[in-house]
Amino acid sequence: MIETPSLVDQYCHGVLRTELGLGTFEAQLARTEGPPAPGTTLFDTQTGFAVRRWCPPLLGLEPHCPPARYLARRRELGVMEADRRLLRGSGITTYLVDAGLPGDLTGPEELASAAAADAHEIVRLELLAEQVADTSGTVESFLANLAEAVHGAAAHAVAFTSVAGVRHGLALAPEPPGPGEVRGAAARWLTGREVGGELSDPVLLRHLLWIAVASGRPLQLHAGLGEPGLRIDRTDPVLLTDFVRATAGLGTDLVLLHGYPYHRHAAHLAGVFPHVYADSGAALVRTGARAATVLAEILELAPFGKILFSSGAQGLPELHVVAARLFREALGRVLGTWVAEGAWSLGDAQRVAGMIAAGNAGRVYGLEEQVPARPAGNVSPLRPG
Amino acid sequence: MIETPSLVDQYCHGVLRTELGLGTFEAQLARTEGPPAPGTTLFDTQTGFAVRRWCPPLLGLEPHCPPARYLARRRELGVMEADRRLLRGSGITTYLVDAGLPGDLTGPEELASAAAADAHEIVRLELLAEQVADTSGTVESFLANLAEAVHGAAAHAVAFTSVAGVRHGLALAPEPPGPGEVRGAAARWLTGREVGGELSDPVLLRHLLWIAVASGRPLQLHAGLGEPGLRIDRTDPVLLTDFVRATAGLGTDLVLLHGYPYHRHAAHLAGVFPHVYADSGAALVRTGARAATVLAEILELAPFGKILFSSGAQGLPELHVVAARLFREALGRVLGTWVAEGAWSLGDAQRVAGMIAAGNAGRVYGLEEQVPARPAGNVSPLRPG
Amino acid sequence: MIETPSLVDQYCHGVLRTELGLGTFEAQLARTEGPPAPGTTLFDTQTGFAVRRWCPPLLGLEPHCPPARYLARRRELGVMEADRRLLRGSGITTYLVDAGLPGDLTGPEELASAAAADAHEIVRLELLAEQVADTSGTVESFLANLAEAVHGAAAHAVAFTSVAGVRHGLALAPEPPGPGEVRGAAARWLTGREVGGELSDPVLLRHLLWIAVASGRPLQLHAGLGEPGLRIDRTDPVLLTDFVRATAGLGTDLVLLHGYPYHRHAAHLAGVFPHVYADSGAALVRTGARAATVLAEILELAPFGKILFSSGAQGLPELHVVAARLFREALGRVLGTWVAEGAWSLGDAQRVAGMIAAGNAGRVYGLEEQVPARPAGNVSPLRPG
Repeated sequence: MIETPSLVDQYCHGVLRTELGLGTFEAQLARTEGPPAPGTTLFDTQTGFAVRRWCPPLLGLEPHCPPARYLARRRELGVMEADRRLLRGSGITTYLVDAGLPGDLTGPEELASAAAADAHEIVRLELLAEQVADTSGTVESFLANLAEAVHGAAAHAVAFTSVAGVRHGLALAPEPPGPGEVRGAAARWLTGREVGGELSDPVLLRHLLWIAVASGRPLQLHAGLGEPGLRIDRTDPVLLTDFVRATAGLGTDLVLLHGYPYHRHAAHLAGVFPHVYADSGAALVRTGARAATVLAEILELAPFGKILFSSGAQGLPELHVVAARLFREALGRVLGTWVAEGAWSLGDAQRVAGMIAAGNAGRVYGLEEQVPARPAGNVSPLRPG
Repeated sequence: MIETPSLVDQYCHGVLRTELGLGTFEAQLARTEGPPAPGTTLFDTQTGFAVRRWCPPLLGLEPHCPPARYLARRRELGVMEADRRLLRGSGITTYLVDAGLPGDLTGPEELASAAAADAHEIVRLELLAEQVADTSGTVESFLANLAEAVHGAAAHAVAFTSVAGVRHGLALAPEPPGPGEVRGAAARWLTGREVGGELSDPVLLRHLLWIAVASGRPLQLHAGLGEPGLRIDRTDPVLLTDFVRATAGLGTDLVLLHGYPYHRHAAHLAGVFPHVYADSGAALVRTGARAATVLAEILELAPFGKILFSSGAQGLPELHVVAARLFREALGRVLGTWVAEGAWSLGDAQRVAGMIAAGNAGRVYGLEEQVPARPAGNVSPLRPG
Repeated sequence: MIETPSLVDQYCHGVLRTELGLGTFEAQLARTEGPPAPGTTLFDTQTGFAVRRWCPPLLGLEPHCPPARYLARRRELGVMEADRRLLRGSGITTYLVDAGLPGDLTGPEELASAAAADAHEIVRLELLAEQVADTSGTVESFLANLAEAVHGAAAHAVAFTSVAGVRHGLALAPEPPGPGEVRGAAARWLTGREVGGELSDPVLLRHLLWIAVASGRPLQLHAGLGEPGLRIDRTDPVLLTDFVRATAGLGTDLVLLHGYPYHRHAAHLAGVFPHVYADSGAALVRTGARAATVLAEILELAPFGKILFSSGAQGLPELHVVAARLFREALGRVLGTWVAEGAWSLGDAQRVAGMIAAGNAGRVYGLEEQVPARPAGNVSPLRPG
């Protein structure tokens, strides 16, 4: 009844290029500290069950078939063909891709081609800074090159993303650090650093955020569930409140990614601040059969024009599929129930569904004006016509 | 099936006296930092949808009609007549009114008259202190006048309310400040202050709370969602635990207003401490179609004799209507489902519904013994007969 | 449809041996600071309603009969017979019992006999330390005796349990304290202490935790709701993250008890760390008609092999009954709904139900290998065969 004909995935990664066995596939289903406990398997999770529900039919199998059977079929088809079938079966027509993860993952162009969809690049700020550090000889050249790199990235990327919350926690001082403070932090970091060394200095993280804010591109901030072993209260989006207020009125939108289990807090910020948006989707992959409830919790405080869909998927195209299917089903069920109860009109529900699935993302990321990463891909404009 | 024939709104404000256009009406639907983002409207929120569901029929229109049509009809009727129709259609029979907000809002008497209901006054402690400061020449006279003003207010008000959480956060030292500390804080505040200046000094906020506790009148504490741009974790009611323990056994009840998104914490305190009560209602206006779930979350830990209804409405009579309708429907659905499942008996459900809707408030605020603010109003005693 | 033929209650206490009147019975329904507020009763809570739903039929009365009638019937039967009927009607086949509470409660053997079930002992670390302190003359003998006592307890107990969170809060330094630090803390504690004095020193609490970790027995940590008047945010299981990481890979499992209202955080830790398990059940007794939702929230992030059932019951056999019945009904409803929606297969749902009800506990606590506390009891092996 409530239909979402196209989906914009506002945040995801590429998929693994290698063939996967049962164990290597299972390891991609969750982000954990260490292997599953003896006697348990990561297939026995909401994500595992959702994969077994939605993906086997796309490869010609029965839903809920055993993992070993699914993996056998996947290998039979080959990773390229499995990727194609899965991604094209997801219903996602535009992917915004953060290619800044280690590992042999497909980039935006390759993802677009496999999916017969559009793809655009998201630039990960911390990786950009690390790459600049690898090639800059002095503090002065590092800082100049960094500003230029962010400026240059803004010309082709649809958005920036920051994992400052994961690296340091979101309780960062809200104002931009002063020039002397930045130079001092850069000097300390560059001195102690080997090539490829991670950026986790809070002053430089803040400096990066503020350069990105100045670029005018939407800035995505990771919040809630992130690195598995870290304290999740340190990525509660409520900790961003003062930074959010400091960036109000500057013309740059902030998008709070993930959010769960603090998604009600993210929704609150999206409700209060005109330039803040809340993510839905990535949390649904983790919570599976509970997706409708988690989505409904986001829909409590977040204005309907401020909610975006993402899969947050990485490694397995199954995760893109599961995110999209769970999201669509959850959205249809939640809004459909409200219509059935008389709380919402059907027309409003259909309009809101289209906004959350694609329309809001189109507006925030300016997708109509954007050249897709792979023009040769099967271009599916958001609003055909 | 589960009926709540009368409702006591234990915390609300008056309504605007001026005619409203589409934009000025929209601005009252939510408390935000700045205007809606381009391409979005505050009508596309749970509150906006709930207003469009419940209010048009009270003015002779179809539910869910477009905002512009609703506003046109409202102007056609005139603000006085629209207020009358809406307030009388809310089902609220007693309003406890905090008149301590700036803006051209109706007071308790005018609200009672428009609503054909009872109304009683709630005194806002911080405003009282600011008014006393405006007219007191010295620290000594300020402190003496303040004590007298609170004492005097206790004679006619049904309750005190404090926004200490919004002004400073709820992490206040639990014990009463000493006399020297109070004098010092008062001297600093009065010296730097211009007429009308806001009270946010933590020592004076605590001093006020303790004077109010000594008065014996119920003390309402704002918690959870408050000022839009503030960090909501600073108003988590759990921060009040030590203050709550310090005030146990003194004979004064504490009522935790709002609470959301920390309403489970407020419910916990209401469950543990005999003198603590939890609010339901204000959160429902914000969460609209999700009202039943939010109410059910409060009903987890809070004893049923410790839950009160409020609208928290301000400015628009539509918000009083929406709060009351959402609350009634949510209560009926939640309790009705439990009866249908066999978890509760019907008799218990009906009894509990009456307690939460009106009975608990009648007991806590002593409403039967109270002279209503406007005796000439249509007096609807809580328990007729 | 979804059946759980046997239940392992991984954490409970014994029941009172004395006859109870209406007031003494009511006082056991919740843990509060002081008696119920005037005009209210603890029977008007989710726990009270759940007791009235599930227990009267076990004593030959109608569900939801008035409390006074239920208590009269209970006295008519006598406490021994009432205990027998209630415990045998609970569906629990194995009880893991923390006997470390004050009051005239039955121990594991007596509980097993009354319930015609198995029972095993859980040793409470802080009580053990207090008992050792009562009989040790010097710091050196105290520390040596303590290590020996924990070692000795590990030989017969199925698990250790710690209330460090309740005594101090869970924000303990994650690493084991050094020997000098421990000696200093022990000296201070023993000097100021009278016989029976409570252990709340954070250094000694940590020392105890680390001795227990070294024993290899599962270690249960109280989190979420605990002592009624304490700040619940101090027992948020997220505060354990660094301790959890510090104990990873040592071969000892950690079980987070209760968790509510932070049960989503506990479920997250169970999802991330191989050696962490999440409790369900104790929260259900408190939330009654909301049990299915609370259980479903735990099932979002916690892998299905990492969730255990407990009643957390103490004093009243009614609480063991209510926990078991609420858990079974909630599990059946939640999983049954997911099957009906096509999200889960029926086979998976049945398998997972058995894991959460008994299988996971059997594996974690090694129950098949364990000699029950009262071999003469009605031994009901977990997996008959």
